[in-house]
Amino acid sequence: MTKIIDLNCDMGESFGAYKLGMDEEVITLISSANIACGFHAGDPNVMDHTVAMAKEYNVGVGVHIGYPDLLGFGRRDIDISRKDLMNYIIYQIGALEAFCRKHGVEVQHVKAHGSMGNMSFVNRNIADAIVDAVQEVLPKTKLFVLPGTEIHKAAQEKGISHVLEVFADRAYNRDLTLVSRKLPGAVIKDPQEAADNVLRMILDGKAQTIDGELIDIQADSVCVHGDTQGAVDIVRHLRKSIVEKGIEIAPVGRWHK
Amino acid sequence: MTKIIDLNCDMGESFGAYKLGMDEEVITLISSANIACGFHAGDPNVMDHTVAMAKEYNVGVGVHIGYPDLLGFGRRDIDISRKDLMNYIIYQIGALEAFCRKHGVEVQHVKAHGSMGNMSFVNRNIADAIVDAVQEVLPKTKLFVLPGTEIHKAAQEKGISHVLEVFADRAYNRDLTLVSRKLPGAVIKDPQEAADNVLRMILDGKAQTIDGELIDIQADSVCVHGDTQGAVDIVRHLRKSIVEKGIEIAPVGRWHK
Amino acid sequence: MTKIIDLNCDMGESFGAYKLGMDEEVITLISSANIACGFHAGDPNVMDHTVAMAKEYNVGVGVHIGYPDLLGFGRRDIDISRKDLMNYIIYQIGALEAFCRKHGVEVQHVKAHGSMGNMSFVNRNIADAIVDAVQEVLPKTKLFVLPGTEIHKAAQEKGISHVLEVFADRAYNRDLTLVSRKLPGAVIKDPQEAADNVLRMILDGKAQTIDGELIDIQADSVCVHGDTQGAVDIVRHLRKSIVEKGIEIAPVGRWHK
Amino acid sequence: MTKIIDLNCDMGESFGAYKLGMDEEVITLISSANIACGFHAGDPNVMDHTVAMAKEYNVGVGVHIGYPDLLGFGRRDIDISRKDLMNYIIYQIGALEAFCRKHGVEVQHVKAHGSMGNMSFVNRNIADAIVDAVQEVLPKTKLFVLPGTEIHKAAQEKGISHVLEVFADRAYNRDLTLVSRKLPGAVIKDPQEAADNVLRMILDGKAQTIDGELIDIQADSVCVHGDTQGAVDIVRHLRKSIVEKGIEIAPVGRWHK
Repeated sequence: MTKIIDLNCDMGESFGAYKLGMDEEVITLISSANIACGFHAGDPNVMDHTVAMAKEYNVGVGVHIGYPDLLGFGRRDIDISRKDLMNYIIYQIGALEAFCRKHGVEVQHVKAHGSMGNMSFVNRNIADAIVDAVQEVLPKTKLFVLPGTEIHKAAQEKGISHVLEVFADRAYNRDLTLVSRKLPGAVIKDPQEAADNVLRMILDGKAQTIDGELIDIQADSVCVHGDTQGAVDIVRHLRKSIVEKGIEIAPVGRWHK
Repeated sequence: MTKIIDLNCDMGESFGAYKLGMDEEVITLISSANIACGFHAGDPNVMDHTVAMAKEYNVGVGVHIGYPDLLGFGRRDIDISRKDLMNYIIYQIGALEAFCRKHGVEVQHVKAHGSMGNMSFVNRNIADAIVDAVQEVLPKTKLFVLPGTEIHKAAQEKGISHVLEVFADRAYNRDLTLVSRKLPGAVIKDPQEAADNVLRMILDGKAQTIDGELIDIQADSVCVHGDTQGAVDIVRHLRKSIVEKGIEIAPVGRWHK
Repeated sequence: MTKIIDLNCDMGESFGAYKLGMDEEVITLISSANIACGFHAGDPNVMDHTVAMAKEYNVGVGVHIGYPDLLGFGRRDIDISRKDLMNYIIYQIGALEAFCRKHGVEVQHVKAHGSMGNMSFVNRNIADAIVDAVQEVLPKTKLFVLPGTEIHKAAQEKGISHVLEVFADRAYNRDLTLVSRKLPGAVIKDPQEAADNVLRMILDGKAQTIDGELIDIQADSVCVHGDTQGAVDIVRHLRKSIVEKGIEIAPVGRWHK
Repeated sequence: MTKIIDLNCDMGESFGAYKLGMDEEVITLISSANIACGFHAGDPNVMDHTVAMAKEYNVGVGVHIGYPDLLGFGRRDIDISRKDLMNYIIYQIGALEAFCRKHGVEVQHVKAHGSMGNMSFVNRNIADAIVDAVQEVLPKTKLFVLPGTEIHKAAQEKGISHVLEVFADRAYNRDLTLVSRKLPGAVIKDPQEAADNVLRMILDGKAQTIDGELIDIQADSVCVHGDTQGAVDIVRHLRKSIVEKGIEIAPVGRWHK
């Protein structure tokens, strides 16, 4: 049986006159796009353009939900109430859905960005609010989760379809958490090392921790980055390495149960 | 045959800690709510609450599309491109739809707010962009138009279902345009006079101009206001006057073809 | 010797079409105004108008610094870097100063609003950043601090002139912290009780805790509220009670060393 | 006598995670910086950093006032009232001044950005509001004006010190207005042609129109651009060409009366 993997990348993060990310190049390499919705990044024009690109390249469309903090790019934690959080999520989902309808595509997945994502790993209240909000308006979508985190548990308990996400360019701790970016070795910059890591996850179901140990991991989608040429080069090499191994790259919406 | 009329009012214009409008009182008197979507007013919490109220009172839900100018409340003209305008509209429609889905109601209509509305009366490019954007994502909705304006013509030519809107508290010129607010007599403050005007429109199909002349007018929905106690008193008296004449008040979505 | 006290109130919190607070009434009762600067509330028109009013009524002008979160009214904690915080403060100070210069008044004080204020009570890094930012651009201003908090200590150690602030309508714990609003009795709604509390602080240097105990407290300025008619009534009664005791009410800038 | 000219460039237009312009390179080539103040672009961190750079390179600091429209980058016309416009300008001036005070520099000039600038050329009400606002809070600053425009006339009549600005990379019409960007030949992309144009203006007091005619022009400051590498190359060549002719490049604040 052919192995299948999804490659996801943040996209549509430009805003007005501000351009961010090499979307035009990245879109040709990935299978799922996490599209910003105007809260932490993105604007209506960018959303429209990004959904159109995703359709053109058969890339799955995801709602990249974030905090309402353009100035902080959604990366600052905000002490937000459950009600606020749920309504911000519903709003962003709806906004992106309208562009999907215009272009005749469906929302494939939802992924939490930046600080909202980080909080969902460790804070069960935040994780629950995200799952609950998504289930209220998009019960059949796929929620991206990091294996072993609070949002993974919340998704399992509440019964929402969820996609296990791994990182191509981040080192893991033994408990499957990511090594803090503040520590040396946290970010993998060598394309071959990133590709080796991902292949090990896909083919062997193992991640190599920063200590060199092998731990079990399940990977449905690999998160890649497209904000610099170096990042895009990693993606390009990763894609080539995956394809060479006979592994199929396809949007989770086409194969993930 | 029973005559039917719709009463519409702007709602959901509060924002964060800022409260605007007497929504809790007005919602009991009207049949259609034009709900702000976070561009000129409103926020996700307010949208959620307002849609919930509309459902509770069987009030039709409308997307009140506006310019992205909270500071100017959408009342300042912005020299906006067709692409920008269309995408801003699509975004707002989607955002409100998600709350409608959460609450199990459907979007009944779309109405342009403030400066976008005013421009749609006189600028065919703006009118076309509005109709085109609405048709792209909500082809079966009802678009509120002022009789005889550019957006009325655009709606007719492009074949979108449109609702003819009249004002209870504004004086008309002979060409069916509204008398400028800068002129004396433009705004009607006497509840009985407002009620008389509306009944004349519904029952006789006539509007009395500021010069006292009677002109033909067709009314599907009467626009009322709820921002002050005085405005709410006008609505209350209007509702009573309409009901006493045996005219039914109902959301356009239930009866307008 | 005549005792002197300052009464301070948040003002200028309206935004665009949104009106908040009974500023026109409150300004006649207080001696210092904490004026929002467009981050958590306020806008350039409101700032201009509020500074003009403060000048007219001989009320001291304060910069009410807040987080950039209009949607949350500056009441949500944001995990903000020292650099961000300092630059946000400098920006807000400058913006208000320009209106002061237009009207020929000087900035009298700086006070942290909402979540920034709350954090400054308990987080020394936040407290230090506030004091440092203020000292960089307004070294001779007066910083409002709550007695015994981190910002009080930071102000003392860094040698910035600071005003000890007490609350008319909040109950105290034994350690001089405010009783949480979530607990019964935290907010004092009876005008006479509020006045008695304040007079006890001014005349006896004592606060009565929620447990009925008397503790030492020093009061330079009493924080009052003007967001509701009930709040304004408390201020009016408080002012009357203070004056009847022969205590002078005057801006800290006129008498505080 | 040595001829002197100023080279000015828009700077500090980045925002949060969004980077715009090659400020670090351009600052070494110019003598005056027009710094965005958070309305059309820029944020407090960027303002702080840009003022620090300007000080380091002895570049004159200017307030680049713009409309409150980050999404439109201040390039969309907004139908703004005189009061709004004046208060927006005062606010932005104050905000930048605070960073200037922190870094021990003074505001040298004010320049209107984007749509506000364009309107100031042709609309006397806008021009008057700009001059009046600047005079209220910065009476001794220098206002950048395009020769022959409404803001030039307003500045002359109201007696504010003003700097005559020319463009290195834009073609002129016979009446000194700029050729519309929509027309061929409007933007000069050849570095030598741009340099020749500027030298002709400085040395001969003449501009060559798009029709090849020579017309009188007076140049105090040349506006250059730094948003692309090509633009920076033009500035580098222009600077070299000016210096080779023995013309001094210096901030207007040091020599302009």
